[in-house]
Amino acid sequence: MSDTVRVGIVGSRFAAMLHAESYKRLPYVKMVAVAAKDNLVEFGGQYGIADCYEDAADLFARDDLDLISVCVPNFLHHQIVLQAVAAGHKSLICEKPLATNLADGKEMIDACDRAGVRLMYAEDWCYAPALMRAKQIIDEGGIGKLLYVKAKECHNGSHSIYAQRKEYCGGGALLHLGVHPIAWARWLVGQEVTEVVGSVTGGEASNLLHTSYTGEDWGVAVMTFANGVKAVCEGNYLTCGGMDDFVEIYGSDGVIKVDVTFGSPLRVYSRPGYAYAVEKADTTKGWTQPAVDEFNSLGYCGEISAFVDCVRFDRPAQRGLTGQDGLVSLGIVLAAYRSSETGRAVRMDEFLAEAASGKKASGKKAPARAKAAR
Amino acid sequence: MSDTVRVGIVGSRFAAMLHAESYKRLPYVKMVAVAAKDNLVEFGGQYGIADCYEDAADLFARDDLDLISVCVPNFLHHQIVLQAVAAGHKSLICEKPLATNLADGKEMIDACDRAGVRLMYAEDWCYAPALMRAKQIIDEGGIGKLLYVKAKECHNGSHSIYAQRKEYCGGGALLHLGVHPIAWARWLVGQEVTEVVGSVTGGEASNLLHTSYTGEDWGVAVMTFANGVKAVCEGNYLTCGGMDDFVEIYGSDGVIKVDVTFGSPLRVYSRPGYAYAVEKADTTKGWTQPAVDEFNSLGYCGEISAFVDCVRFDRPAQRGLTGQDGLVSLGIVLAAYRSSETGRAVRMDEFLAEAASGKKASGKKAPARAKAAR
Amino acid sequence: MSDTVRVGIVGSRFAAMLHAESYKRLPYVKMVAVAAKDNLVEFGGQYGIADCYEDAADLFARDDLDLISVCVPNFLHHQIVLQAVAAGHKSLICEKPLATNLADGKEMIDACDRAGVRLMYAEDWCYAPALMRAKQIIDEGGIGKLLYVKAKECHNGSHSIYAQRKEYCGGGALLHLGVHPIAWARWLVGQEVTEVVGSVTGGEASNLLHTSYTGEDWGVAVMTFANGVKAVCEGNYLTCGGMDDFVEIYGSDGVIKVDVTFGSPLRVYSRPGYAYAVEKADTTKGWTQPAVDEFNSLGYCGEISAFVDCVRFDRPAQRGLTGQDGLVSLGIVLAAYRSSETGRAVRMDEFLAEAASGKKASGKKAPARAKAAR
Amino acid sequence: MSDTVRVGIVGSRFAAMLHAESYKRLPYVKMVAVAAKDNLVEFGGQYGIADCYEDAADLFARDDLDLISVCVPNFLHHQIVLQAVAAGHKSLICEKPLATNLADGKEMIDACDRAGVRLMYAEDWCYAPALMRAKQIIDEGGIGKLLYVKAKECHNGSHSIYAQRKEYCGGGALLHLGVHPIAWARWLVGQEVTEVVGSVTGGEASNLLHTSYTGEDWGVAVMTFANGVKAVCEGNYLTCGGMDDFVEIYGSDGVIKVDVTFGSPLRVYSRPGYAYAVEKADTTKGWTQPAVDEFNSLGYCGEISAFVDCVRFDRPAQRGLTGQDGLVSLGIVLAAYRSSETGRAVRMDEFLAEAASGKKASGKKAPARAKAAR
Repeated sequence: MSDTVRVGIVGSRFAAMLHAESYKRLPYVKMVAVAAKDNLVEFGGQYGIADCYEDAADLFARDDLDLISVCVPNFLHHQIVLQAVAAGHKSLICEKPLATNLADGKEMIDACDRAGVRLMYAEDWCYAPALMRAKQIIDEGGIGKLLYVKAKECHNGSHSIYAQRKEYCGGGALLHLGVHPIAWARWLVGQEVTEVVGSVTGGEASNLLHTSYTGEDWGVAVMTFANGVKAVCEGNYLTCGGMDDFVEIYGSDGVIKVDVTFGSPLRVYSRPGYAYAVEKADTTKGWTQPAVDEFNSLGYCGEISAFVDCVRFDRPAQRGLTGQDGLVSLGIVLAAYRSSETGRAVRMDEFLAEAASGKKASGKKAPARAKAAR
Repeated sequence: MSDTVRVGIVGSRFAAMLHAESYKRLPYVKMVAVAAKDNLVEFGGQYGIADCYEDAADLFARDDLDLISVCVPNFLHHQIVLQAVAAGHKSLICEKPLATNLADGKEMIDACDRAGVRLMYAEDWCYAPALMRAKQIIDEGGIGKLLYVKAKECHNGSHSIYAQRKEYCGGGALLHLGVHPIAWARWLVGQEVTEVVGSVTGGEASNLLHTSYTGEDWGVAVMTFANGVKAVCEGNYLTCGGMDDFVEIYGSDGVIKVDVTFGSPLRVYSRPGYAYAVEKADTTKGWTQPAVDEFNSLGYCGEISAFVDCVRFDRPAQRGLTGQDGLVSLGIVLAAYRSSETGRAVRMDEFLAEAASGKKASGKKAPARAKAAR
Repeated sequence: MSDTVRVGIVGSRFAAMLHAESYKRLPYVKMVAVAAKDNLVEFGGQYGIADCYEDAADLFARDDLDLISVCVPNFLHHQIVLQAVAAGHKSLICEKPLATNLADGKEMIDACDRAGVRLMYAEDWCYAPALMRAKQIIDEGGIGKLLYVKAKECHNGSHSIYAQRKEYCGGGALLHLGVHPIAWARWLVGQEVTEVVGSVTGGEASNLLHTSYTGEDWGVAVMTFANGVKAVCEGNYLTCGGMDDFVEIYGSDGVIKVDVTFGSPLRVYSRPGYAYAVEKADTTKGWTQPAVDEFNSLGYCGEISAFVDCVRFDRPAQRGLTGQDGLVSLGIVLAAYRSSETGRAVRMDEFLAEAASGKKASGKKAPARAKAAR
Repeated sequence: MSDTVRVGIVGSRFAAMLHAESYKRLPYVKMVAVAAKDNLVEFGGQYGIADCYEDAADLFARDDLDLISVCVPNFLHHQIVLQAVAAGHKSLICEKPLATNLADGKEMIDACDRAGVRLMYAEDWCYAPALMRAKQIIDEGGIGKLLYVKAKECHNGSHSIYAQRKEYCGGGALLHLGVHPIAWARWLVGQEVTEVVGSVTGGEASNLLHTSYTGEDWGVAVMTFANGVKAVCEGNYLTCGGMDDFVEIYGSDGVIKVDVTFGSPLRVYSRPGYAYAVEKADTTKGWTQPAVDEFNSLGYCGEISAFVDCVRFDRPAQRGLTGQDGLVSLGIVLAAYRSSETGRAVRMDEFLAEAASGKKASGKKAPARAKAAR
């Protein structure tokens, strides 16, 4: 076990900030390098990172890094991970989604496997304390046998051009937001999804609200697991008032509901407003329920701490948080796109086999049916 | 305007009780007759109804009734309504769902139309005060343009054999419970549904929990309206702890969430328990949020009062509460069954045309795909 | 039992509106006359009242009124009630507080008693549906033996000059708002208060926020009942965000909490805002919990209906809602003022005896100690 | 800065467990010794503490301890602290309340001052994350000028004989529970209390529920601060359903409410029950709102971490967490007892001066008035 884990971060925007805020709480972590195209000096300064590079290659050229966080826009995950592997780095954290299409994701995993790289998939929901507590109660038998899960992440849209366009993001709200509840539901159920029925808006003029976005602004995936458990997962950009992450878990003898983002012990009425309430809220005036410590409650601190421990104690990423888990979660979203496009339920085994056979099973084409439906 | 509205009730169980509780709050209503196979004397005694008949035909033979409530099991709605029409009665309230298949429902409506009968469809959600308040806020522009609706009614299953078997009920949870949110969403949006994607469990061994029920114990319908608005409606029997009716309404500039059943101003912790908390709750011990006045908050009082006013002031049933509205709501549920069976999205115009052409578009066959998926 | 109850209202502002809104829901009530110094034509027009008088004497001169609502500023209750009695009217509803001092209140009650007048004291809390439901649960044994009650009514101050000045109001927040929880707690416990410990701010410069008000802007009364039950009641003008009426009831085996004003089933996020959320809220933008039907949920509808039934069925006002109950509630507030002034616990029997002996036990003098304490 | 902080704990019951759970989360802390009369081996085993002593003197005889936690029953705080000081230890954490009377507390502080001992007072509320977040919002101007605070800690009574008897505890619910909100309110306001009005039940037959307890089972203290701010703090043993720590903070332009114990993002309905919901809850069946991580949310982790940092970085205890702060908080509770006994408001300067002059201003005598009041 090394005394200090030396970290490099690729990226300097929102996701990079989430990682850095989590790293800085760990006494045995030192953030030593960052690489980014912009916001570089500001980011480095804010987190006391000594070495700032404009080119990720310069960061990868170092041989003193124990762990690298890949926090670039979705469409660059593929290239940056391959570059890090080629440079000989052995522990990588890749932000969600793993990639923007299955072929890219498969290539990343294969490269890591060949090179003996520990590829960790950053699904923070698996470490959100309230959701871990829910799992604990289920494991204690508190709701009997698990039958059905509902989960969503929704907000009112991102200002980032990388989130608004499918070519950068790989999809719209169901991919960018919905991949959280989908990955988490799969982790919770502990089984593979066998069938997906999806419904998403069609992007641009076919969207409900954000007609300038090329990806969907609303999407739902109905999933059936191998053991029959059902899940309904959702991501949308139609939700004002702050990010809404909500979970319902139904068992044979009980129910658990978790209000991940608004389940705060505080209620505030403020005329002048204050600094910050919750992610994506557009005001702090009037009544709000500010998060106490969002980096923690959304799971970022726990996730990063767990990944750092994988490095410290030379362990693989836990179940649900490997590159392969990221790949499957991506596959479920893309299967939901396929279902919405074709108006048909999609069997996951067929869908993944088709993807593996070389036909790219992506969501790149605008879903024709959804457009027509409007 | 008549001074007193004289009411006859057919049925003596749960739905009949809901009607009677609502009638008795209206000073200008007199319940004069009830017909039922069982529980007759008890019911009549409880509500001070003078004349109790074992055969509905005897009730229909009277010529002094201004209004008749049809509160029999679903599969008998068809027969009882036709019987009432044949006997010359002119104002009927039919409980939900209108019928167990579209052909029956169509026949009921046609018969009423021919005979000039006012057929009122008892969708209490349209009169739930909290949901009416939500509509008022939408109408005032409080959330901008309406985009998306989520709504559900869920509980842990019914003890009534009529609810547990498709041959009596016409379906399972999506029909018996989900028809409330579906009818309400259609009324709120004020447009017709063009497409339905449905997912339901398959009944019996294919159910998640209630393997003795022949209808589904879980169902979701994703609906697209003519103006592009989306709705996700759900009914399930997987929900412990009391009936859970919850609504979310998303607009371009706001959100409304309504906790219809648990949105009580009271929180109670009770060691000994007390008489009643909310519908279908299996305990009043520990922490509960008892309804203040469920007959009112679930909309029964408002609905019955509105129907009585239709008689008093000789008005047709309001939009959303006519027999035709009941027929369309039933059609949406049955289309969701079809979608789940076939694994395909269902276009409502095609589905209804097919039904009108004589092929019964019912949900009677067990949905093969849902079974296979488990 | 008369077919129609004919009502006259004295006053045309907030309290008069509350009465009129409640009367208009009752099919057997007809509002036939109103008397007020201002807002007369508008008020009469709004509620379809045919006869509008500038002088209450003209209203009292009529002999066709079955019931009169006294909705004038507090300091005029005494004069108007005496005037109505003198004119021969037999059923009066007096708004809270009964009077601004005990001598006035005593004179009103004596006059009514001598003339056989039914004097009803308008404590709406006793008819708030949520609080009635709480009482029902207590009566069912749900929380065991009643031990302790906390209750408050608080908002951010009134624009009415009659509420801001002690000479018109008789006190500040503890009288104007706190008299609701105090009267309700006494009604709930069903016992007399034996001792009061009070703490109030001193008005004007001694207030915490409203230094232009001559009455206190914050006040607490700790009450001990004859059976040992304790109550802590509060009224303050320090509470932003809408009127906050909250109740906690502690028993030997349970707890009941009632969020009378914010315990709504609706949660709304609105960017543009909408018409109305809750009493005294200064915005409808951002997150709000709008009341579904405040006239009903605050008890006005139930209270007025009960008073009208007293007239219809020639019954006395119920326990807790007689003039005498109003007098005792006023006495408790004034005893709290005395306690705050003197820094001593006040025994209610001594305090009331002293008042009866002719020394006016009012709260008119500025409480010296509270001032000094700042 | 020492690499590792070596900790000794005196006590092995509830408070000791809270300290140990917090210590074990800190990578730079090593718990090396524990002393206790009972539960010794179990406690040592649970937390991996190598050296277990039956006599605290043996623990104090060690010269390798950087920090000592005093977690014995209240009445032993005095003796144990003096013993630790005499043995030459330099950093002590004393559990609340500091002592059972002011003379003892003063002697402890004087001894520490003379010996240069860092005496830290364990008020966890000052480190409860939700309450720290509330303070941050106040500091950002979110509610304008602070005017008024309400705070309480309440549950249904303790099984510990040390909590049930005044001779061991120093008082009843207002001391044992209420000292938390009182110390926290004083820390938040940042001013001294000038006047206290108290009301408490009289113990034994004069209690509302727990007639076997010699201390009060209900108590309220109304406090006026030097700047005029008001606070109402409460502790009671009348509250079923789990420990209820609730805070309200009123400013000139806003309000903050913090539900410290029930403000969980989880709502659970469980038929079989599960391991643990919240402190002092007597069931996990039915509906519950389980704490996510109570050691953290109640402030224990933050408090212990802060104390350990005082040792690591050789800093004094922060404002509000010194022995002197503990003494003043105790004084406020005892002044509330005096006020309840005498039926008079108590000026804190006079009360503390009297105590300093040698007359023990304790709450030892049963409060005569409270008894009489029943």
